[in-house]
Amino acid sequence: VIDPVFLDSPLYRCEALEPGLGCAVSIKLETANPVRSFKARGTEVIASLLAEHGPRAVVCASAGNLGQALAWSGRGRGLDVTVVASRFATAAKLERIRAFGARLELVDGDHELARERAAAIARYDGIRLVEDSLDLETCEGAATIGLELVEARDGWDGPDGRDRRGPAQLVGAAPPFDAVLVALGGGALATGVGHVLKELAPGVEVICVQPLGAPALTRSWHQRRVVTTDSTDTIADGVAGRYPIPAVLDDLLLVADDAVLVREASIIAGMRMLLDHAGLVVEPSAALGIAAILEDPDRFAGRHVVTVVCGSNVDVDAYRRWVDAGPVPAVRNQEIRE
Amino acid sequence: VIDPVFLDSPLYRCEALEPGLGCAVSIKLETANPVRSFKARGTEVIASLLAEHGPRAVVCASAGNLGQALAWSGRGRGLDVTVVASRFATAAKLERIRAFGARLELVDGDHELARERAAAIARYDGIRLVEDSLDLETCEGAATIGLELVEARDGWDGPDGRDRRGPAQLVGAAPPFDAVLVALGGGALATGVGHVLKELAPGVEVICVQPLGAPALTRSWHQRRVVTTDSTDTIADGVAGRYPIPAVLDDLLLVADDAVLVREASIIAGMRMLLDHAGLVVEPSAALGIAAILEDPDRFAGRHVVTVVCGSNVDVDAYRRWVDAGPVPAVRNQEIRE
Repeated sequence: VIDPVFLDSPLYRCEALEPGLGCAVSIKLETANPVRSFKARGTEVIASLLAEHGPRAVVCASAGNLGQALAWSGRGRGLDVTVVASRFATAAKLERIRAFGARLELVDGDHELARERAAAIARYDGIRLVEDSLDLETCEGAATIGLELVEARDGWDGPDGRDRRGPAQLVGAAPPFDAVLVALGGGALATGVGHVLKELAPGVEVICVQPLGAPALTRSWHQRRVVTTDSTDTIADGVAGRYPIPAVLDDLLLVADDAVLVREASIIAGMRMLLDHAGLVVEPSAALGIAAILEDPDRFAGRHVVTVVCGSNVDVDAYRRWVDAGPVPAVRNQEIRE
Repeated sequence: VIDPVFLDSPLYRCEALEPGLGCAVSIKLETANPVRSFKARGTEVIASLLAEHGPRAVVCASAGNLGQALAWSGRGRGLDVTVVASRFATAAKLERIRAFGARLELVDGDHELARERAAAIARYDGIRLVEDSLDLETCEGAATIGLELVEARDGWDGPDGRDRRGPAQLVGAAPPFDAVLVALGGGALATGVGHVLKELAPGVEVICVQPLGAPALTRSWHQRRVVTTDSTDTIADGVAGRYPIPAVLDDLLLVADDAVLVREASIIAGMRMLLDHAGLVVEPSAALGIAAILEDPDRFAGRHVVTVVCGSNVDVDAYRRWVDAGPVPAVRNQEIRE
């Protein structure tokens, strides 16, 4: 049911990144599609189910990417889509939600207030509430990324022991990856991808990465109970939640091998590396994986790591400020090269 | 024989570009692969044939993308690759050629001198010379882009009249494209893609785009005879040739519907639009298609145009200078919006 434009996204090794990171790095690129993030994999599932069986109206809270994706998926199926967002959300994301034809309601608070308001609208209007990461369709959509990763890995060295690689792959390509880095926000991406990997490629380490400035779900994972925070302070708008969902934490405890926190400076250094060495414009959340390698190079040294580049919706001016700023990553890069 | 990492590249509609262009625009993205250009589609064919039958050593002249691709394809198959380039070529491209393990020889002149030198090396050493656009493998590789475009178009509205679109595509997606914009350099991309389209989707207009500052093949196409120029003056390093190859011109006359020239300011405006509205870093050659729409919006108004984003190998500093420069496209954009 997922439009093919969102499936089989590029997965490729990016050797130009590697001298600065000390490990083999492959990119799973989720930005080359009509909504520039992975979120439509999930909203396609939701919208197609609704178009067949459900109510024709749907509401979600969103930091911007889910809203764009639901607007896109709903428009194609004649659904009436409402998106609730913080008025502090990334302007480019809000603009695209409107452009895709959704009704956009802004709240004077952060993403958690938007979640409350979306739930209230759903109750009041009797329409379908889409709760990112709680609704299984959002995780199932993300899980298709996991399936594609496993399929690619099987292409290198199949589970039946038969080597499916052609001559080029045999000689020139990377070894099968042994770790996947996923941005951790609400948890849909991490639980979706994690579930598939733990099921089909249990040897691959699933590492969730969250900003130090929005650590609620990571702290919850480490303490094995829901930990909330009073505020968030990060440029990674796509993953800046404060109230983890208990059921999502339960799932995450089953499928994640680790959850780590990274500093803002590392996120910016990651964005800059992806621009300078991979030619990729990414939003801060999509640089969390690179940031994690920058902060702990020893952990990844000599390994082959896949990082899911999950979105590229940025305000261009803010993006330029971030990547043009001073030599934030210099110390760290030096450390790594030594 | 082509490594799958280079095939089935993303093809997606980019609505955020459309208000500024006045037509539906889809992007065929050839940058999300290990060499960041379409050139490896061709070098994979060459290298696999050589690995089976031919000499183990190969030389090519390159502005940088062919050289990277041949280095990558050759490395995976144990070939000995030499690349000859101008010492004025884009530094990032030269660096990657070396990083992929090829021997790099620089000439103190432009790309045409590099072509002469590569031919001399091939004669002297008795190794295989790869001539971009003349060697059919380079065109066949590019032609696989055409096959993918036709396949996608058939998905919208099959040649047997059966509509293969799902509900989402029926309602929300674009109509089948009716024009394809391809960068014109040596001619491999244009003749490869053009041949497939004229064969399988003859109604689609194939429009080649070249910079005003490197117009030799476009002028040749219009005059139906080889026209050379004394120099080139363009930032689009990937397409800056002066001596069109007669056999390539013959092919181009058969498959191109038009060949147009665009100004440098339009190329920069195109690069900036792709950054601001599509989140894509592209090299100048890859912005030629958008530049062509900017220069002649009436021609494309209301149509659905595919532009092949053929490479993203830029020197980051030069790229920033280009896209950060003053309001070059302002006048043009205003005209379009009126």
